[in-house]
Amino acid sequence: MRLRDLAEALSCQLVGQGEVQIRGVASLREAKEGELSFVADARHLKYLEGTQASAIILSLQDPPSTKPTLRTDNPYLAFAKALHLLHPQALPPPGVHPTAVLEEGVELGEGVSIGAFTFIGKESMIGDHSVLFPQVYVGLGSHIGKGCLLYPQVMVREGVWIGDRVIIHSGTILGSDGFGYAKDKEGHYQKIPQIGGVCVEDDVEIGANVAIDRATLGQTRVGRGTKIDNLVQIAHNVQIGQDAIIISQVGIAGSTKIGNRVTLAGQVGIIGHLEIGDDCIVGSQSGVRENLNPASIVMGSPAIPHNLFRRMAVSLPKLPELIRTIRALEKRIHELEERASSR
Amino acid sequence: MRLRDLAEALSCQLVGQGEVQIRGVASLREAKEGELSFVADARHLKYLEGTQASAIILSLQDPPSTKPTLRTDNPYLAFAKALHLLHPQALPPPGVHPTAVLEEGVELGEGVSIGAFTFIGKESMIGDHSVLFPQVYVGLGSHIGKGCLLYPQVMVREGVWIGDRVIIHSGTILGSDGFGYAKDKEGHYQKIPQIGGVCVEDDVEIGANVAIDRATLGQTRVGRGTKIDNLVQIAHNVQIGQDAIIISQVGIAGSTKIGNRVTLAGQVGIIGHLEIGDDCIVGSQSGVRENLNPASIVMGSPAIPHNLFRRMAVSLPKLPELIRTIRALEKRIHELEERASSR
Amino acid sequence: MRLRDLAEALSCQLVGQGEVQIRGVASLREAKEGELSFVADARHLKYLEGTQASAIILSLQDPPSTKPTLRTDNPYLAFAKALHLLHPQALPPPGVHPTAVLEEGVELGEGVSIGAFTFIGKESMIGDHSVLFPQVYVGLGSHIGKGCLLYPQVMVREGVWIGDRVIIHSGTILGSDGFGYAKDKEGHYQKIPQIGGVCVEDDVEIGANVAIDRATLGQTRVGRGTKIDNLVQIAHNVQIGQDAIIISQVGIAGSTKIGNRVTLAGQVGIIGHLEIGDDCIVGSQSGVRENLNPASIVMGSPAIPHNLFRRMAVSLPKLPELIRTIRALEKRIHELEERASSR
Repeated sequence: MRLRDLAEALSCQLVGQGEVQIRGVASLREAKEGELSFVADARHLKYLEGTQASAIILSLQDPPSTKPTLRTDNPYLAFAKALHLLHPQALPPPGVHPTAVLEEGVELGEGVSIGAFTFIGKESMIGDHSVLFPQVYVGLGSHIGKGCLLYPQVMVREGVWIGDRVIIHSGTILGSDGFGYAKDKEGHYQKIPQIGGVCVEDDVEIGANVAIDRATLGQTRVGRGTKIDNLVQIAHNVQIGQDAIIISQVGIAGSTKIGNRVTLAGQVGIIGHLEIGDDCIVGSQSGVRENLNPASIVMGSPAIPHNLFRRMAVSLPKLPELIRTIRALEKRIHELEERASSR
Repeated sequence: MRLRDLAEALSCQLVGQGEVQIRGVASLREAKEGELSFVADARHLKYLEGTQASAIILSLQDPPSTKPTLRTDNPYLAFAKALHLLHPQALPPPGVHPTAVLEEGVELGEGVSIGAFTFIGKESMIGDHSVLFPQVYVGLGSHIGKGCLLYPQVMVREGVWIGDRVIIHSGTILGSDGFGYAKDKEGHYQKIPQIGGVCVEDDVEIGANVAIDRATLGQTRVGRGTKIDNLVQIAHNVQIGQDAIIISQVGIAGSTKIGNRVTLAGQVGIIGHLEIGDDCIVGSQSGVRENLNPASIVMGSPAIPHNLFRRMAVSLPKLPELIRTIRALEKRIHELEERASSR
Repeated sequence: MRLRDLAEALSCQLVGQGEVQIRGVASLREAKEGELSFVADARHLKYLEGTQASAIILSLQDPPSTKPTLRTDNPYLAFAKALHLLHPQALPPPGVHPTAVLEEGVELGEGVSIGAFTFIGKESMIGDHSVLFPQVYVGLGSHIGKGCLLYPQVMVREGVWIGDRVIIHSGTILGSDGFGYAKDKEGHYQKIPQIGGVCVEDDVEIGANVAIDRATLGQTRVGRGTKIDNLVQIAHNVQIGQDAIIISQVGIAGSTKIGNRVTLAGQVGIIGHLEIGDDCIVGSQSGVRENLNPASIVMGSPAIPHNLFRRMAVSLPKLPELIRTIRALEKRIHELEERASSR
């Protein structure tokens, strides 16, 4: 692809020679001739000089380069689009693999691909151009929208609703029973049947080995455009808003509501029945035990405002010394008191 | 089902009209005519007025309702039972799917259901009326009791013993090798073969994407009636008592013993070779590094008694200010000392 | 096997009768006649008296035993080797199960075993004597070395490179997409295609339900001899050195480099783009947010030197009392000041 055409496709401003052929994307340090590279972070400008790349994506503010350049206000987004264009994903061809098992009443859209050993339960529906890789399970009466990707060994139980363009990575479980029990007289836990569902809206991506439980009653919901990383736990009846970012190993307990555009960093835990307002940011490993107002930024376990947390974290290692200081002050005060009273 | 019959089946006291037909269970806010709802938490009494439900489960203490009512000392348990009665689970029919692979010497009880692409190794035993969904693996010589449910993509390795009425959710791994190595002279880790097994007693339920390792020697054990949530790690030779509750993303290191009726909240970590006494409660995200006496309630990392933790958590954000106070006090004492000695 | 032969095979010094037949290994308390036991920890010496074992592995420093004894400077390693010799693993026989699906151009080495319902994508390569259990997935063009074990339901996506003698436990996902998005003008996250790979070097072992993401560009790498426990998250472009130990539920964020012989204890989190030097030890549940020099030992979240952490952890519960002490001191100083100024 000519750089000139790429500039147009990526809505970038072309600076320099546009006839150079670009055949791939690589990092500044690994790029070879014929490849496009990018600077998304000013710290990487130092590699610009030495790169073998034939062209560079730069922000409007970056210094000029001797190489042909694509200028844009969002180099990272242009990089993403260039990857899509120059490295299109090789997907399995449409069609149903002869080993796949489709129960009666399954409805397949146009151009659907169903891999080997994949099982689709009765009356499920798979939308146009969706790809189910091998060894996927879709339970009774579930709905998968158009243009979805379900990687190998994804498990979608009965009564789950998935929107369009949803990507689900391997080992992820949608619709397992929520964790609910009632204690009987003998102190044994009796299972509360979980008869609700899971609803995953359009443009959601879910990482590997995630668990999203079905609701007790009603729906567990993941809002449009939200992205979920690997090994995340989403309990029954959790409601996640739109365009949220849930990083790896986060756990969200039952019935909690997460607002739009919230970011939960890695290993965060949120207890049940809370409301986390829109645009909140929760730092990694934090434990949230109270509702959060919109746009809160918190850290720590229990979580507190992040400014306070940072000051506290700096103070904390001084604590042992502080205790010694206080003991010493106590002694000095005692001596002053003795002296004062002896007078 | 008539409300009168439901009252009898749930051992509740019927107040009001018993002839009303009940066809399902729903929450107070979502219930429609013909549905039963419940109040398990006094905070939900406010929704009682506006509900469309045709009948309500209430505790003996709740105020009277204008609707037909089922009174009981345990509304949550009655709700669980009502769900079982009114929403019975649709399970796959008995029989072995033609694609399933059963090696020689497999013994199947009566009414067993084996799903598509499920593999059962030599000389394994599946008890009466157990259901193995599609894509399940059961290794050589394992034993699965009566009335068990193994959801799609459960993996049970060789030599695992599972009791009766055990429920295992998708993606869960039973009997993977414990994490054990001996360092050799070159500083390389040499694998210690893990030749023990896993024993899961009756009435246990295990969530999705859990990992329970087999013992080095002997057994890793989960006691009768214990309930384990999603994404939990149980290392080799761990012993868990009866009726324990292990919430999502907990990790229990090797050889630790967890007593009966213990509750471990979400993301708790417990180091190896400890004893956690009966009836202990460990708060979410806590890190337990010492044995716990029975009925201990602890929080924090490292874990301390929860009363102390709560006071500490309140004090902690005051620490930066405290340091400033101490510096100021130090100055004032110094001035007092100067003045005293100058006299 | 005669104890005499075992002594030779394990390079141990035989003390006592060498003709006794040994047929297995067991712990001191569970061993029966004909079994070998061991003391790897001086705390277990107390069980030595009562054991039924026919022979014992002891360190050179342990007190003499009345039983035939194998003496060595590394009893734990001798125990590991004895387990290998006396309890050899029963592996599936070589051959391709008739239900397995191998796409065109798959290359199988000698003595390879491919289990039921296993899928191998085009142009993948499986080395000599490797065993793929049932229900494994290997994507397009991946490479698996010699003598590897892939347990049931392992998922290896396209373009993953695995060395020799690598063991991967069930439910583990290699090569899922890294978590990378660029925000567009509307505030929606646009996926950054992840076109890199994963490279797992020789002699690595990876536990159950682990997730290792493929790189955005380049490779995510796990170095030779490194051992990874269950439910670990390794993000895109992470580089892990040789002979490292990564315990259960650890999360390592994108592009972080972990040195050789590093130990990360359970539930540790490490943020992205860091460098953790060789031989570092990070205590359980710690959160690492800064680079670590080689041989650092840290704990806490945020992580600090472990000596400091220990002192801090002891001081922390004293904090509420400390605040009261300071308030009291403040009052006493005030009184002294009053008195001083009134004079």
